[in-house]
Amino acid sequence: MSRSISDTDRFFDFIAGFVTGEGSFYVTVQRSQSRWPQVSCGFSVKVRADDETLIRSIWRALDYAGNIHHIASRRYRYEWDTVTRHDSILLLVRNLDDLNRIIIPFFDRHGLRGRKRENYELWKQAVRLVECGEHLTPDGLEKIAAIRAELNRYHGQDEPDESATGSE
Amino acid sequence: MSRSISDTDRFFDFIAGFVTGEGSFYVTVQRSQSRWPQVSCGFSVKVRADDETLIRSIWRALDYAGNIHHIASRRYRYEWDTVTRHDSILLLVRNLDDLNRIIIPFFDRHGLRGRKRENYELWKQAVRLVECGEHLTPDGLEKIAAIRAELNRYHGQDEPDESATGSE
Repeated sequence: MSRSISDTDRFFDFIAGFVTGEGSFYVTVQRSQSRWPQVSCGFSVKVRADDETLIRSIWRALDYAGNIHHIASRRYRYEWDTVTRHDSILLLVRNLDDLNRIIIPFFDRHGLRGRKRENYELWKQAVRLVECGEHLTPDGLEKIAAIRAELNRYHGQDEPDESATGSE
Repeated sequence: MSRSISDTDRFFDFIAGFVTGEGSFYVTVQRSQSRWPQVSCGFSVKVRADDETLIRSIWRALDYAGNIHHIASRRYRYEWDTVTRHDSILLLVRNLDDLNRIIIPFFDRHGLRGRKRENYELWKQAVRLVECGEHLTPDGLEKIAAIRAELNRYHGQDEPDESATGSE
């Protein structure tokens, strides 16, 4: 059966491409002396502040899950910077229900590609573990730590520093 | 009239999204004492080397215009780096005929968005000027310089450094 193509569908596939480049699916574990480690899963995508219209159109496509944050560049400016940093706009979703109800169905349907897709599949496993409360067990916490170690791991082999040969 | 959606169409819209985030439409002007300035227009998109499969699928969608280059990270590693840099893979198209015949029709049909789209429209003007040989005239060269100055210019207004107020 052929489905008619709509501008909305096209924009959704556009978002899959944009997020494959610019999006982040992350897991954090906050450890402290006094309490059980806090596990948090989230999705974010950040653009330069003058692209706010673009990020807001993506936010709308994602049913306004999460929040939009303005990040002032002065907080991330260093003496040794050789480039000018500008303010940025961050779309951040970290509510578990929003992730399950909106973010995951969206990217299951409008597929990411390449290494970002592999990260996304791993990240989903972490979300499922948290959803089932497994992050409150030592075993679940270990699984989450293993996922974190794998997320964004470089699978390539860089050319060695010693070599004086060119590329390709 | 509704058109049937194919995986190819979907991938093309994905590419428009990916390139909106990760692509570059650039114009360079090389000036020297001994000859007329050399103007060059190009399109590039770069990923970490372990995403080579993704960049090659984009290359295929773009009819294999341009070339794929392996960029060794050791050439871009600095003492003050706080992050590990890895090798990358660059798709680079700078042949005028390829830009006109493949790149421009592709991104005219599968639209970029936001600031990248504005850059793309400006960049196309530069490509047209070069195509018509106007870069060989002082007037044309001035127009190209004006386009370069506008490409990637930040249109936002950053929060001032002095302010102690937080963001949102």
